[in-house]
Amino acid sequence: MIPTLHDIHQAAQRIRPYAHRTPVLTNESLNQLVGAQVFLKCENLQKAGAFKFRGACNAVYSLSDEEAARGVCTHSSGNHAQALALAARIRGIPAYLVIPNNAPSVKKNAVAGYGGQITFCEPTLEARESTLERISLATGASVVHPYNDERVIAGQGTAALELLEDYPDLDVIIVPVGGGGLLSGTSIAATETKKNIRVMAGEPEMADDAFRSMKAGEIIPSVNPKTIADGLLPSLGKLTFPIIQERVEQIVTVSEAGIIESMKFVWERAKIIIEPSAAVAVGVLWEKKVDLSGLKVGIILSGGNVDLEKLPWQ
Amino acid sequence: MIPTLHDIHQAAQRIRPYAHRTPVLTNESLNQLVGAQVFLKCENLQKAGAFKFRGACNAVYSLSDEEAARGVCTHSSGNHAQALALAARIRGIPAYLVIPNNAPSVKKNAVAGYGGQITFCEPTLEARESTLERISLATGASVVHPYNDERVIAGQGTAALELLEDYPDLDVIIVPVGGGGLLSGTSIAATETKKNIRVMAGEPEMADDAFRSMKAGEIIPSVNPKTIADGLLPSLGKLTFPIIQERVEQIVTVSEAGIIESMKFVWERAKIIIEPSAAVAVGVLWEKKVDLSGLKVGIILSGGNVDLEKLPWQ
Repeated sequence: MIPTLHDIHQAAQRIRPYAHRTPVLTNESLNQLVGAQVFLKCENLQKAGAFKFRGACNAVYSLSDEEAARGVCTHSSGNHAQALALAARIRGIPAYLVIPNNAPSVKKNAVAGYGGQITFCEPTLEARESTLERISLATGASVVHPYNDERVIAGQGTAALELLEDYPDLDVIIVPVGGGGLLSGTSIAATETKKNIRVMAGEPEMADDAFRSMKAGEIIPSVNPKTIADGLLPSLGKLTFPIIQERVEQIVTVSEAGIIESMKFVWERAKIIIEPSAAVAVGVLWEKKVDLSGLKVGIILSGGNVDLEKLPWQ
Repeated sequence: MIPTLHDIHQAAQRIRPYAHRTPVLTNESLNQLVGAQVFLKCENLQKAGAFKFRGACNAVYSLSDEEAARGVCTHSSGNHAQALALAARIRGIPAYLVIPNNAPSVKKNAVAGYGGQITFCEPTLEARESTLERISLATGASVVHPYNDERVIAGQGTAALELLEDYPDLDVIIVPVGGGGLLSGTSIAATETKKNIRVMAGEPEMADDAFRSMKAGEIIPSVNPKTIADGLLPSLGKLTFPIIQERVEQIVTVSEAGIIESMKFVWERAKIIIEPSAAVAVGVLWEKKVDLSGLKVGIILSGGNVDLEKLPWQ
């Protein structure tokens, strides 16, 4: 089922006691450089460091007490695993996370730090899915997919809702796209709240499956993509793709250099830590492949989980 | 003249059209680690990357049109120079900055980027002061001292005013101390707004002249201090010291390791970029030299101007 604006409003109410209402920052240097008025919705300042907490929290608090008692589970090596572990801890229920054994230790530690119960598996999609199925059957835990889940999509849409509450006269909203959870939730929230608002996504050139899927009119899975924007590796899902087809104006690809330059500029000038995946949305303006001059542009900075020991400009 | 709460309120009104009202962030990991409820007032997200813009802006907009037309000047190699250059540019008047010729090029570039007119001098206090006097006489520009100036002190006090508007039930406010502009302004704003609120400062162990001045009851200038917190090198001034003596509970010294650890923790967990000088205030909680357990503690994160190519944990 495709979530409605009503579902997103309900999600907003459900997560309000637990999630941060993140600030929206503006920066004159950025505005001048890209020739637009930019409004940065700082989901890097969200709990667990990414917008993912919204969807995970909405899913966890959508469960009945009985369902919740059996816990939640997912497979992910990234921000969704951390977000689900934290949301589960807040509700006081178990979270089982299937993590590929080659995931960086900084991510494993973060999940463990939020009290998540980790099972390692081989780094293949097949191993991840079969391990998850086994755990779900053994524990009765509810599976919470990182994006192909209407509760998750509705939760992700709440960021755009807040952004438009704060700045109702935006012309455009840009978000990064990986599996499409943030993009689909944002597109529903934005286009249902404001007629004629334009929704776009930034995607790494090196992982441009969403761009190609939009052209082809069908999901084209990405094959072994390599990009610094490690949160954007997944392909679109069956639930997210049709929403994006219907409501998103275009997907704009961004070079690796554009991602790194945008990221460093935001760190240096806006003084906030964003991860490469978040910089992809800024990169759409940075590389000026679309003419948005003079417009009011909202950007959802998706997350800020970065290994400070390994920065791309070093 | 010592600024009053009324002066600080006037400064707040004066700078409102130009300065950011910076957000206040909270972070569960930090709270747990230090055993207090911490509220981070993000002056690193202020224009020009530091609270200094408040004082500079108040000084610039306190001038009559006739005075303003002749410009402003100061000697500084740091955040005050950037702040004054930007405030002057916004008012459309010249800013003359005397900068020691050994200042890092990243700082010179920032000042030049804001349109400031730079004069280099030898890196001694004598050369700085004589060069400044010469420029002031030649141009008629008003000198705006980085902290020993009542307009500047009143401007710096506006950050605490906002923090207490957002969180009126704080028990303690902690700020870093260098020349004492932020500390004196904060202490007036806080103690005049809320009876029994405690105001403290963090100071680098390696530049502990304020700590020693408080013990001695007279200004003890720092002699060639060496600390990573390069914003906190100046000694207290004749105007700031008596205010601090009267209103500040204590100065707490923080080790270099404590500064770097606090800084990295804030970057990693709160996802914001703070400079070492700002981390000194966090370090007071981090090193637990004062028992603030269970209290509501506001911290003014003074700035975020850091050279991203040279991080202290690399």
